[in-house]
Amino acid sequence: MKQKKEIRPYTHRAQYYETDQMGFVHHSNYIRWFEEARCDFMEQMGMGYREMEEAGILSPVLAVQCEYKASVYFRDVVEIRLKIKAYNGIKLTIGYEITDQATGELRTTGETRHCFLDRQGKLLSLKRAHAAFHQMFLLAYGWEQEAEGEKESRF
Amino acid sequence: MKQKKEIRPYTHRAQYYETDQMGFVHHSNYIRWFEEARCDFMEQMGMGYREMEEAGILSPVLAVQCEYKASVYFRDVVEIRLKIKAYNGIKLTIGYEITDQATGELRTTGETRHCFLDRQGKLLSLKRAHAAFHQMFLLAYGWEQEAEGEKESRF
Amino acid sequence: MKQKKEIRPYTHRAQYYETDQMGFVHHSNYIRWFEEARCDFMEQMGMGYREMEEAGILSPVLAVQCEYKASVYFRDVVEIRLKIKAYNGIKLTIGYEITDQATGELRTTGETRHCFLDRQGKLLSLKRAHAAFHQMFLLAYGWEQEAEGEKESRF
Amino acid sequence: MKQKKEIRPYTHRAQYYETDQMGFVHHSNYIRWFEEARCDFMEQMGMGYREMEEAGILSPVLAVQCEYKASVYFRDVVEIRLKIKAYNGIKLTIGYEITDQATGELRTTGETRHCFLDRQGKLLSLKRAHAAFHQMFLLAYGWEQEAEGEKESRF
Repeated sequence: MKQKKEIRPYTHRAQYYETDQMGFVHHSNYIRWFEEARCDFMEQMGMGYREMEEAGILSPVLAVQCEYKASVYFRDVVEIRLKIKAYNGIKLTIGYEITDQATGELRTTGETRHCFLDRQGKLLSLKRAHAAFHQMFLLAYGWEQEAEGEKESRF
Repeated sequence: MKQKKEIRPYTHRAQYYETDQMGFVHHSNYIRWFEEARCDFMEQMGMGYREMEEAGILSPVLAVQCEYKASVYFRDVVEIRLKIKAYNGIKLTIGYEITDQATGELRTTGETRHCFLDRQGKLLSLKRAHAAFHQMFLLAYGWEQEAEGEKESRF
Repeated sequence: MKQKKEIRPYTHRAQYYETDQMGFVHHSNYIRWFEEARCDFMEQMGMGYREMEEAGILSPVLAVQCEYKASVYFRDVVEIRLKIKAYNGIKLTIGYEITDQATGELRTTGETRHCFLDRQGKLLSLKRAHAAFHQMFLLAYGWEQEAEGEKESRF
Repeated sequence: MKQKKEIRPYTHRAQYYETDQMGFVHHSNYIRWFEEARCDFMEQMGMGYREMEEAGILSPVLAVQCEYKASVYFRDVVEIRLKIKAYNGIKLTIGYEITDQATGELRTTGETRHCFLDRQGKLLSLKRAHAAFHQMFLLAYGWEQEAEGEKESRF
């Protein structure tokens, strides 16, 4: 199997305009940070989302979920790690974990589900539409399956 | 049982700044619309979220989920209906349904989960902390249970 | 001269996600409210911005300015009035005034400047590109000049 | 005179959620980027805005202006440079310049004006309220005056 690429966690510093009057970051912003991390991940894998759109492929969000474990405050720096939880060439599920950079404490977990569309809104098989992007997701998905396998084989 | 109050669905017109370059509303905004609908619902029930904060009670979001069924475009008007799916005086679960006002078609469904905190971040029992707000959520939750019961008793 | 159309002020209710940890609406949101009011104004004039884009004409913002006179708080309802301060078929300047609906007090004043582009980003003369939109802006601009004239003729 | 501190320009990568359906970054976001750059500048100067709030001093925006010279696209990296254009212990004016990191081309210029308030909303003289923050702004303002002086003395 191809060697696992070292992916740096994405970092984001919480901005003032992201807070609300409760005194910490508004919950809708984590959904946006997931997107930031997703774009960064694809670029670290060598194929950015901008390039994907330039190739005529859109990847809208079908579903999102987010669990807020602890608040993020103005100027806190968080690290966002993601993994490909499911991928079959048609649909993609990504999991996220947001931790505080200073303490390592968990702040948020989440998940997004995606499909692939052409510019006319027609559902695409990414495998057929763009083999290189397909290989990228497949590769990253493989790492997770391998990691799962290792966990299981310990028993 | 107290008569069911007639709650008008909340309406929102999609704004230009809510779109992204995919050409329709960015998925993070629906989470914000849920919040708009939630505040409007509480006000229609007679006890707004502003009053709740003035009484020293915060209600942060513990979790959110959202399924995107179809896109909302610039200037579309959507209707948002919500219901209290669970409430026990400590935790609150609200369900949402976003439909297109013009066609009635479903656009999005979602759910948020909440708790209640005092200004120091201590978990509150709303029942003890503020009986009137507690009664409000209990009442609205009762409507849903009754509706469920009616559905079941048909069998 | 064509009779002045009665334009209702645009209303916006301040949302929780629009506040920041200072405890009132974040200053960037007023820029977005100007846009909401602008779109509403065009629709009340009979020709919406959506129709303008569908006709292949974009109207980006060239400049914006905003003076914050007093804060807007969560759930406050504001009224936004706008007027065409300058228009020559090529460039458009719009002025805005935001007041509190409950008290009538001034909250913010501002201004945006716009041009017109085709889908390729080429500068357009709106007069030549779309006579009906041109007439609309010219008409609304005329009202302001007339109002100015009346003010001056009082002296 | 105290030596001029080397301030790194602030960098921001344009995010997908910052674009709109015109296909580039929505104009309201530059106002938010000014804020990001302002906070970063204060931290590089050694006294962050978070510390200022913790010391009981708020610095709301009194006015903002922004001129859009050229669009910023998804994933573009911009550099934001700022300078203290005016400061007298009571009011503060900051100027901004946004350039494209790859080409050095100018994208946007802007300005924000600020005052200082205590938690009760009372206007403060920063000089009296917090000498260290006052010295920081005075120092950075001095650099600009010196730069102006050098320009003038060339004639």
